[in-house]
Amino acid sequence: GALGGLGLALGLWRRQVALAAAREDEEEKELRQRFMAPPVSGLRELRRRRRELRSRMELLIMETQAEMCRALAALDPGASFVVDSWERKEGGGGISCVLQDGEVFEKAGVNVSVVSGLLSEEAARQMRSRGKSLKAKDGKLPFCAMGVSSVIHPKNPHVPTMHFNYRYFEIEEADGTIQWWFGGGTDLTPTYLNEEDAVHFHKTLKEACDKHDLKLYPKYKKWCDDYFYIKHRGERRGIGGIFFDDLDSPSKEEVFQFVKSCAKAVVPCYIPIVKKHCHDSFTPEEKLWQQLRRGRYVEFNLLYDRGTKFGLLTPGSRIESILMSLPLTARWEYMHNPPESSKEAEILEVLRNPKDWVH
Amino acid sequence: GALGGLGLALGLWRRQVALAAAREDEEEKELRQRFMAPPVSGLRELRRRRRELRSRMELLIMETQAEMCRALAALDPGASFVVDSWERKEGGGGISCVLQDGEVFEKAGVNVSVVSGLLSEEAARQMRSRGKSLKAKDGKLPFCAMGVSSVIHPKNPHVPTMHFNYRYFEIEEADGTIQWWFGGGTDLTPTYLNEEDAVHFHKTLKEACDKHDLKLYPKYKKWCDDYFYIKHRGERRGIGGIFFDDLDSPSKEEVFQFVKSCAKAVVPCYIPIVKKHCHDSFTPEEKLWQQLRRGRYVEFNLLYDRGTKFGLLTPGSRIESILMSLPLTARWEYMHNPPESSKEAEILEVLRNPKDWVH
Repeated sequence: GALGGLGLALGLWRRQVALAAAREDEEEKELRQRFMAPPVSGLRELRRRRRELRSRMELLIMETQAEMCRALAALDPGASFVVDSWERKEGGGGISCVLQDGEVFEKAGVNVSVVSGLLSEEAARQMRSRGKSLKAKDGKLPFCAMGVSSVIHPKNPHVPTMHFNYRYFEIEEADGTIQWWFGGGTDLTPTYLNEEDAVHFHKTLKEACDKHDLKLYPKYKKWCDDYFYIKHRGERRGIGGIFFDDLDSPSKEEVFQFVKSCAKAVVPCYIPIVKKHCHDSFTPEEKLWQQLRRGRYVEFNLLYDRGTKFGLLTPGSRIESILMSLPLTARWEYMHNPPESSKEAEILEVLRNPKDWVH
Repeated sequence: GALGGLGLALGLWRRQVALAAAREDEEEKELRQRFMAPPVSGLRELRRRRRELRSRMELLIMETQAEMCRALAALDPGASFVVDSWERKEGGGGISCVLQDGEVFEKAGVNVSVVSGLLSEEAARQMRSRGKSLKAKDGKLPFCAMGVSSVIHPKNPHVPTMHFNYRYFEIEEADGTIQWWFGGGTDLTPTYLNEEDAVHFHKTLKEACDKHDLKLYPKYKKWCDDYFYIKHRGERRGIGGIFFDDLDSPSKEEVFQFVKSCAKAVVPCYIPIVKKHCHDSFTPEEKLWQQLRRGRYVEFNLLYDRGTKFGLLTPGSRIESILMSLPLTARWEYMHNPPESSKEAEILEVLRNPKDWVH
C-alpha cells in the first residue's frame, strides 16, 4: 500500500528526471548545431540565467556568427571555416571563425568574444567613446564585454568588403551600480561604386532602424561617415552604413531589440551583393586598384580604429582575432592618382564627399 | 693718364666681378650635380650662412640622399628614381626620391625634408622623446626641423629591407634660447637570417660610432632593439642597428660629427649586402614569408613609429613622403606559425631575443 505508493512516486520522479535530462541533451544538441562552437559561458549557465540580458546577447552574437558563416560558406563551397575556440587567461574567451584564400573570399573572419575581469579606471574611461568616468572600488572595476565582429574581404574587385560589429558592455561601479551600453554598426567598402548595391545596402539597414525609431538611421548613418574617416587622406574607408556607440537609452530591452534588428540585417544587406557580383569578370588593373584600396583599409584599422587599438592594448587579448580584420594582401604605391573621370576617381569622389543613398 | 688709369681699374674690377659670378655659377652647377634636386633653402642662402650648423646639416642630408640614390640606381639599371621637390605651405619643403617596382627593388624611397614654422607647446613637447617642456612666447615656438629618411624594400627575399633616418631640430624659446638636438639611426630587417650579413651591418655601424666614443654603439644598439619593438607580437621589426634621439651633448659640433659618420656609413653597411644577394634564387614559399614580414613592417610603422605618427599629425605634412616607407605589397594570414627548426622560425627567434652581433 504505502510502500507501493512510495515506489510508484519514486518511479514517476525518476522518469521525470530522466525525461528532463533527455530534453536538456536534446536542447544542447540543437544549440550546438545552431552555433559554430559551444558558447563561452556554457549552455547550462546560459539556460540557468536565460532571462538576463547578458545571456540573451551572448545567444544573439553566437547566432549572428553562425548565420553569417553559413551564408558565406554556401557561396564558397570549396573553402571552409577554421573554427578556433580560445580562452582568455584573465576571464572569458571567444570563438574565431576564419575562411582564408577561398574561391570567392580572400579572407572572411567572424569573431565572437565574451570577456570579463577587472578594469583600471583609465581603461574603463577609454572604453566609452564619450570618456565618461566611473567610480571604482580599490581602483578596479569589474566588467563584462561581449560582441560579434566580422570583416569579409572578397577576391573579386566587384564584390565589396563588408564589416560589422555588435557589442555589449557592463561595468560595476563601487556602489554596485551597473553601467551598461551597446555599440555596433555595419558598413560597406567597395573598390568600385555600384549605386544599386549602395542603395540596397543602406536601405536594408534603414529598414532595420526604422522599426525602432525613424531618427536612428540618419543619425547612425552620419556617425558612420564620421567614424570611418582616414584623416590624413581626407577620405572615408568606404561608403558607410550605420555606426553607434555608448547607446544606453531608452531602456536595456529596447536597445537590445534594436541591436537584434541590426544583427539580423547583416546577412540580407550583404549576401545578395556577393551573389550578384562574385562571378563578374575583372581586369588586372581592377585587381590592382582593389589592392591599393586594401592598403587604405589597413591604414584606417591600424591608425584610427578604436576597437583595434583598444584590443591591442588590452592585456590577454587575442592578437590573431583582432588582426584578422586585415586583408590577406594589400599594396601601397607612391603618388598613385587615378585619372579624372575614371571609375577609380568616381569612388574616390564618394569617399571624399559621402552621399545620401536612401531618403 | 688719370682717366686711362681709372679705365684700367674699372676694367679689372669688372673682370673680377665677372670671374666671381662665373665661379658662383660653377659652384652652383657642381652642387646641383652633387644633389638630386636644388636644396630647399637655396644654394645662395646655404652659401651665405655656410658656417651655421643648419646649413652644414642640410648639405649633409642632401649628400646622403644623393649617395644612397646613386648607389641604389647603379644596382637597378632598368629602373630610375622619380624626384619630387615639394613645398610646405607653412614653411620649408622637401625632396622625395622614389624608385618603384624595379628589377632589384620593390620600393626604395629616400626623402629629405627641411621644414620650419611655429609649434604649439604641446606639439613641441611631443617632438622630444623625453617630453621636455619648453617655454613659449604667446604659446608658439619657432622651430626648424630637417632630416633625411629612407626605407628600401628589395624584391628578393634574401635581400633585407633597410631603413635609416638622420634629423636635426631647433626650437627657440621665449627668452631667445635655442634648444637643439639630433636624432637618427640605421636598422636592418631581413626576411631570413644571414649571420655574415648581420655582422657586417652591425660592424660597419659600430666602427662609425667607435670613432667618437666607445660607449655609443652598445647604447644605441640597445636603444634600437627597444625602439623597434612590435609589442602586440612580442617581436622586433628586424635585427636592429643603431637608434638615438634627443642627442644634445657633448657639443653641437661633436654631435654633428658623430651624425655625419653615421650618415656616411649608410651606403657601406647596406649596399654590399644587396650586391651579394640580389641574384640569389628563391622559392614561392620564401617570397610568401617575405610578404608576411612586410605585414609586420606595416604594423610597426602605423601602430608604433613615432616619426610616422608625428608626421601624420603635423599640419601641412606631405602624406606621400611619410607613407613611402610602406612596402609595395604586404600580406596577413590568420594564425601563420612557421614550423619548428625552419628558416622562418630561426629569424623569429632572433626577433624575439635580440643578439649581440659584434663585441
